[in-house]
Amino acid sequence: MALIVHKYGGTSMGSTERIQQVAKRVAKWARAGHQMIVVPSAMSGETNRLLALAKELAPAHSTPNTLRELDMIAATGEQVSVGLLSLALQAEGAPAVSFAGWQVPVRTDCAYTKARIGAIDDQRVRKELDAGKVVIITGFQGVDDQGNITTLGRGGSDTSAVAIAAAMKADECLIYTDVDGVYTTDPRIVPEARRMGVLSFEEMLEMASMGSKVLQIRAVEFAVKYSMPIRVLSSFTPWDIPVEEEENSGTLITFEEDEKMEKALVSGIAFNRDEAKISVLGVPDRPGIAYQILGTVADANIEVDAIIQNISKDGKTDFTFTVNQSDYARTMELLQEKIMPATGAAEIIGDTKISKVSIVGIGMRSHAGVASKMFRALAEEGINIQMIATSEIKTSVVIDEKYLELAVRALHKAFELDAPDEAPASA
Amino acid sequence: MALIVHKYGGTSMGSTERIQQVAKRVAKWARAGHQMIVVPSAMSGETNRLLALAKELAPAHSTPNTLRELDMIAATGEQVSVGLLSLALQAEGAPAVSFAGWQVPVRTDCAYTKARIGAIDDQRVRKELDAGKVVIITGFQGVDDQGNITTLGRGGSDTSAVAIAAAMKADECLIYTDVDGVYTTDPRIVPEARRMGVLSFEEMLEMASMGSKVLQIRAVEFAVKYSMPIRVLSSFTPWDIPVEEEENSGTLITFEEDEKMEKALVSGIAFNRDEAKISVLGVPDRPGIAYQILGTVADANIEVDAIIQNISKDGKTDFTFTVNQSDYARTMELLQEKIMPATGAAEIIGDTKISKVSIVGIGMRSHAGVASKMFRALAEEGINIQMIATSEIKTSVVIDEKYLELAVRALHKAFELDAPDEAPASA
Repeated sequence: MALIVHKYGGTSMGSTERIQQVAKRVAKWARAGHQMIVVPSAMSGETNRLLALAKELAPAHSTPNTLRELDMIAATGEQVSVGLLSLALQAEGAPAVSFAGWQVPVRTDCAYTKARIGAIDDQRVRKELDAGKVVIITGFQGVDDQGNITTLGRGGSDTSAVAIAAAMKADECLIYTDVDGVYTTDPRIVPEARRMGVLSFEEMLEMASMGSKVLQIRAVEFAVKYSMPIRVLSSFTPWDIPVEEEENSGTLITFEEDEKMEKALVSGIAFNRDEAKISVLGVPDRPGIAYQILGTVADANIEVDAIIQNISKDGKTDFTFTVNQSDYARTMELLQEKIMPATGAAEIIGDTKISKVSIVGIGMRSHAGVASKMFRALAEEGINIQMIATSEIKTSVVIDEKYLELAVRALHKAFELDAPDEAPASA
Repeated sequence: MALIVHKYGGTSMGSTERIQQVAKRVAKWARAGHQMIVVPSAMSGETNRLLALAKELAPAHSTPNTLRELDMIAATGEQVSVGLLSLALQAEGAPAVSFAGWQVPVRTDCAYTKARIGAIDDQRVRKELDAGKVVIITGFQGVDDQGNITTLGRGGSDTSAVAIAAAMKADECLIYTDVDGVYTTDPRIVPEARRMGVLSFEEMLEMASMGSKVLQIRAVEFAVKYSMPIRVLSSFTPWDIPVEEEENSGTLITFEEDEKMEKALVSGIAFNRDEAKISVLGVPDRPGIAYQILGTVADANIEVDAIIQNISKDGKTDFTFTVNQSDYARTMELLQEKIMPATGAAEIIGDTKISKVSIVGIGMRSHAGVASKMFRALAEEGINIQMIATSEIKTSVVIDEKYLELAVRALHKAFELDAPDEAPASA
């Protein structure tokens, strides 16, 4: 008997028919002898409906007092879900009980609409599990020290599920979603893209931050912090496939040390179409200049990625970095109005027609030559590399956006990602 | 400065536009210098929508575990309302904070879907009032000793408002609804029906139990228990009429001792079309026979009204009583199957084509001749009286249903209820 946490997204909870399917699936796991905790999201569309009502009435400017009310309103979506799922489970003959975050309690700080989970009390949940009940807990929310309802922000139910799994010392946390796992790259671009059986937390973080929107990044961070294995799998398989089959489906995200881990050189190809490149040319190469430029941008709450500083020439240097396209206009304006006069920069150049492509893999850490293999594959396709940025387990290049699909396909093939899973490389 | 509780029904909270009107009205009262507590219902239709979802998923038979989930689900309707109203008030520039029942807390027993309020803690609410905030509290719900959400049953928001007003020692509890007060009788039958300015609790209880569905009867019981004056008034007057004008509109329901009370002989004419008359004829007149018949009916959860026992003749007697028409078939079956064989009753006769008409008034207590005036008025219209039942402040007659409207009009006229309010009869 294991203690298992299931998390179901809004689409899986999208109608009473779908909730019945979820109930049948969970009841199957309970009948197989597992203790079960389920963390469902709000029914799809519900959170948006509630926040649209709130938006019609709220003052123009947000304050902690208005954000508190948004959480009060938005948290009801998941409360309805847990009650409905509990009823559906009881109709399946599986004893079940639902809890709102404050009833567990799931304690958070008081940062309304983006609260962070602190402690989770396991007493009440443990008691119901020991009484043979499936325990259903609202995702996305908790309660602060003063007894105010808080929410964790969009996608927070993933985080709730992992945090609850960690607090309850669950054996595994299964995230049911509308995709059947994490792929080597986007199958819409590379039809040969292959579902990965196992992936390390670090690789998942690098894949997720590049836009593979399978899992909320904070959920992965929680999983790392508490060493909680996560399995991402589809909620659209027939509910009555054997539990053993489900236990091996999807993608398991776990520790590098896990013996199941394939130590591939490169695990996947991530990419991002939504970036823009900005260069600040001819600035004096003096101490503090990087901070002067990038600090100003950061102070405006603009996130900067892939920063490059050219070598100095005649006491002048160039900075190039990428920002999200939605921040592009604001960043250009900021640089022209504040940075040019302050630094005496010669020129500011921007380009929105770029994409970023990355190879991600734990194996890169201990193998040389991976980056050069990437560059060669791109060169063979005649793709010019505009920028290069590397981390321990990722190498990213910025290229003309028109070459994105070509680059992803070339890299997927060069690193043989369409080949079936190999046996574990080492123990 | 007074402490005022406002309660708004589902229709008043039915859209964001209407919620804005409520916010403007409450903000006006706050600006007039009052401390304000508001208890809104769920947006109209919302509770039905939620319970319909629940019904699709729930097991066929209710258990405490399924009822607990119904409360978990239904309680969200009011939670959304309080959050939205708080946002709307803040947009009006009035500081506001919302609380769910468990946050106050409003403590109840654990009778899910029909819980009864026990104690209400005033600490947290008082603190926010003293900080100058409008406090908005969910109607219809509370929390039991184990931290489970409970609801009070349909219309429970009236009860919540009165109970909160009592716990907070409020000066008055204003129930905003879609009618502008309590009338001497149904204006659809008697166009001259007049809104009553003041009414005693006891009269309201007698009027309410007869189907004048203005206020939930448990709310009136709470008001009596805690001596909390209630004013029923319309939420469809323009929000910006002066506070002083609103303070004198609608119908005030208060103590008999109140000096504003008009000591009219008869305050109003109540009626009920939904009753049926049943007679059990020729039963042996022995001790315990009434309990044997009516106890059996009561054990089946059938409510019985207007019971008459004829004088005994030849050791036999007759019982006649009324039940709600929805219980009629079940009651007849019960009597024929159980009571006839057990008592040797000669015959069971039923009649669904009857109506009950009542005159209600505090003044009847100290004035003789009121009932006879009623009987004369009916006789003059040629209406035959089938049954008579009296209490201290009410006299009811059962008549053929086809005479209902005629009887109500005749009585309304006979007791001069279309005349304007008189000055208080005494101090």
